[in-house]
Amino acid sequence: MSDVKIPYKIYLEENEIPKQWYNVRADMKNKPAPLLNPATLKPMTAEELGVVFCDELVAQELDETNAYIDIPQEIQDFYKMYRPAPLVRAYCLEKKLGTPAKIYYKFEGNNTSGSHKLNSAIAQAYYAKKQGLKGVTTETGAGQWGTALSMACSYFDLDCKVYMVKVSYEQKPFRREVMRTYGASVTPSPSNTTNVGRKILAEHPGTTGSLGCAISEAVEVATSNEGYRYVLGSVLNQVLLHQSVIGLETKAALDKYGIKPDIIIGCAGGGSNLGGLVSPFVGEMLRGENNYRIIAVEPASCPSFTRGKYAYDFCDTGNICPLAKMYTLGSNFIPSANHAGGLRFHGMSSTLSQLYHDGYMEAVSVEQTEVFKAATEFARVEGILPAPESSHAIRVAIDEALKCKETGEEKTIVFGLTGTGYFDMVAYEKFNNGEMTDYIPTDAEIQAGLDKLPKVE
Amino acid sequence: MSDVKIPYKIYLEENEIPKQWYNVRADMKNKPAPLLNPATLKPMTAEELGVVFCDELVAQELDETNAYIDIPQEIQDFYKMYRPAPLVRAYCLEKKLGTPAKIYYKFEGNNTSGSHKLNSAIAQAYYAKKQGLKGVTTETGAGQWGTALSMACSYFDLDCKVYMVKVSYEQKPFRREVMRTYGASVTPSPSNTTNVGRKILAEHPGTTGSLGCAISEAVEVATSNEGYRYVLGSVLNQVLLHQSVIGLETKAALDKYGIKPDIIIGCAGGGSNLGGLVSPFVGEMLRGENNYRIIAVEPASCPSFTRGKYAYDFCDTGNICPLAKMYTLGSNFIPSANHAGGLRFHGMSSTLSQLYHDGYMEAVSVEQTEVFKAATEFARVEGILPAPESSHAIRVAIDEALKCKETGEEKTIVFGLTGTGYFDMVAYEKFNNGEMTDYIPTDAEIQAGLDKLPKVE
Repeated sequence: MSDVKIPYKIYLEENEIPKQWYNVRADMKNKPAPLLNPATLKPMTAEELGVVFCDELVAQELDETNAYIDIPQEIQDFYKMYRPAPLVRAYCLEKKLGTPAKIYYKFEGNNTSGSHKLNSAIAQAYYAKKQGLKGVTTETGAGQWGTALSMACSYFDLDCKVYMVKVSYEQKPFRREVMRTYGASVTPSPSNTTNVGRKILAEHPGTTGSLGCAISEAVEVATSNEGYRYVLGSVLNQVLLHQSVIGLETKAALDKYGIKPDIIIGCAGGGSNLGGLVSPFVGEMLRGENNYRIIAVEPASCPSFTRGKYAYDFCDTGNICPLAKMYTLGSNFIPSANHAGGLRFHGMSSTLSQLYHDGYMEAVSVEQTEVFKAATEFARVEGILPAPESSHAIRVAIDEALKCKETGEEKTIVFGLTGTGYFDMVAYEKFNNGEMTDYIPTDAEIQAGLDKLPKVE
Repeated sequence: MSDVKIPYKIYLEENEIPKQWYNVRADMKNKPAPLLNPATLKPMTAEELGVVFCDELVAQELDETNAYIDIPQEIQDFYKMYRPAPLVRAYCLEKKLGTPAKIYYKFEGNNTSGSHKLNSAIAQAYYAKKQGLKGVTTETGAGQWGTALSMACSYFDLDCKVYMVKVSYEQKPFRREVMRTYGASVTPSPSNTTNVGRKILAEHPGTTGSLGCAISEAVEVATSNEGYRYVLGSVLNQVLLHQSVIGLETKAALDKYGIKPDIIIGCAGGGSNLGGLVSPFVGEMLRGENNYRIIAVEPASCPSFTRGKYAYDFCDTGNICPLAKMYTLGSNFIPSANHAGGLRFHGMSSTLSQLYHDGYMEAVSVEQTEVFKAATEFARVEGILPAPESSHAIRVAIDEALKCKETGEEKTIVFGLTGTGYFDMVAYEKFNNGEMTDYIPTDAEIQAGLDKLPKVE
């Protein structure tokens, strides 16, 4: 099909928004390892998980057999407020790079949360409301998840308590106000409001926090307050399930024009965006129907895929959550303070970890000054100011497109543009002033984290 | 046509983006009064205007006969990056209000400038580039126009010098970084970099600035530097012309579903959004084809339509620009320091002023705490955090919908949602903390401004 016919933005019709999520685990021969009870080291039962999570979400978390799960009508209606998200042909970026590659990006930033996180937030809030709960607790790093959850809770009239990693809380003063505008309460983590927070503060005075700390606090508050449950914006199977709308829409948009991608690129923190974007494509690989090169991009300062170990580990710093088998740097790993934006979780989705382990995807790590160079180059020609997280994917998409320029190959590259950078201007300012630095952990630092992994057979 | 068939968001196809702008002046029997040379009080000639503005833009400024003007292909291509903008059916807001009214909004915020300003910025940058200029200068208030122009200049590789009203520069530290990311230089106004700035600072030490001051500085820089021209984001006829894409797309989207609006609402500062949104509808009224109720909404703290005088006045505080006949509060009028966001220009588009004078539209003024109440209510159900400017239109749309609730009338209300509020969180924080106040100028304050209007017959 001739390029001329492909518009700048491929929009699906409203009735083409997926009505079912796709559960990639149903097609995996090697299923992701189960969550373990940290006390017994036995797989967590639905009942045990139900103390922390909403019942229906627990069912989704444990479901390894149903490939498609119906999206409730209320969630479909909410999706219509900001979906379908466009698949954009990056004509201007291609021209600027002078590459024969064809570059597409799935843009998830056109909603107030500024990212793809809303796709799962609205689902989790819906199930919490359906269960008759008063509210939910959560953690947020860069702030997209907290914002998304605040929006979703406000829509369903649920209370929302957000623990925000302290360094982000300080770097992004306005994120808090967006969450408050949607009626959420926001506490910088670690805080004095929880036992685990007080313990962490006593052991690490002056810590700037981590996702692992904030998770511990949010879980403690959920389990010690009647009518509350904890919700998580990444890592979990249920989140990847909800985020599959990204990949399903992307695939539908590509299919409309008969486009087959050669390379699919996504940034990877806990794996919510990457997992959602690649699910339907990996499904085809798992079923032997098709083949794609899939690249996970992570920050060099928090390199769980590329330098972590595939092992059981705690998901939180306080070690009160279940153990997950995943690529991990150890639950005490905290990225260097100069690290901007999200992608700061020490572990990785266990589904993606299994897929990576089984060779269905590659991973690369990139340094943040290179990431911001790519972000600026992209912003200037594509007119979107990308989030630092998303810009990891941009970096590698540009690198792959430049390789095509050398070889003359007309590869089709698709990447996930997860969100916008409006609340990341402190980082952009550092970059604009030439003051941004990189930090790559030493082998000894990485090993120190791995040495503390729990012993699980 | 049944409501069921109307989607949440009406998107046009890429090939339905307007290929011509609509010039409402061609259909006006009473043309807007011409700009006057402040020295001679004679209408400005094309040659005189060409000292300040790009040649092709001068031609558009003076064109009162051509109803449609072709949009150059390069601008059409840029429009494809972020247009068509959706016309959204506010189903959730209607439900929340319990109104029988049908509410639609044209959302112009889904681009990095965060507003409709990009529609004219890209046109003005294109003509500057075509003329072989080195760069352009401008002023910005709330920052949307400066951001939009930075993006447009970066796209065409033009230098961009922005004078930003000091109070906004201080309230919105991150706006500056977005502009810098797009390669622009940003100076808080009034500044020491110009004669007029030094004069204003000497006369009003500690002033927080005004659009009128910033315009004077930007014009001085443009006219005293070889290869530069001045560009303006509102007020001018050319800007309303470019912004007609908003109204043309809105009309095309409504026509697709056979919807005829009863009320069309837009916020009004200098008139760029309102003029663009209503142009094609007013055109029908001027040609006697149709009738609509059109409402301009302005801040009570800067009420040029509702409390100003229809007279010739300077567009800038330094009185170095041509005189325009418009509704004005006097070129020295500066809104109270507690005024949040844009809509702070002392005057109004002369085209809109003539239409208002001739009875084609109404105007109302609203206080900002009421505006932020509407903004928050809207954000919580429609999922978009609106700009303070846009929220003026939301306020009146909600008020009209509530009137329908009382009377049971199923009116169709369309309003312009010009942009997003990501950079207005200082104002939202004030509102969230209950610290926002209102200020309505006294009659004496208004009269003081009007007493200083230049004497022109």
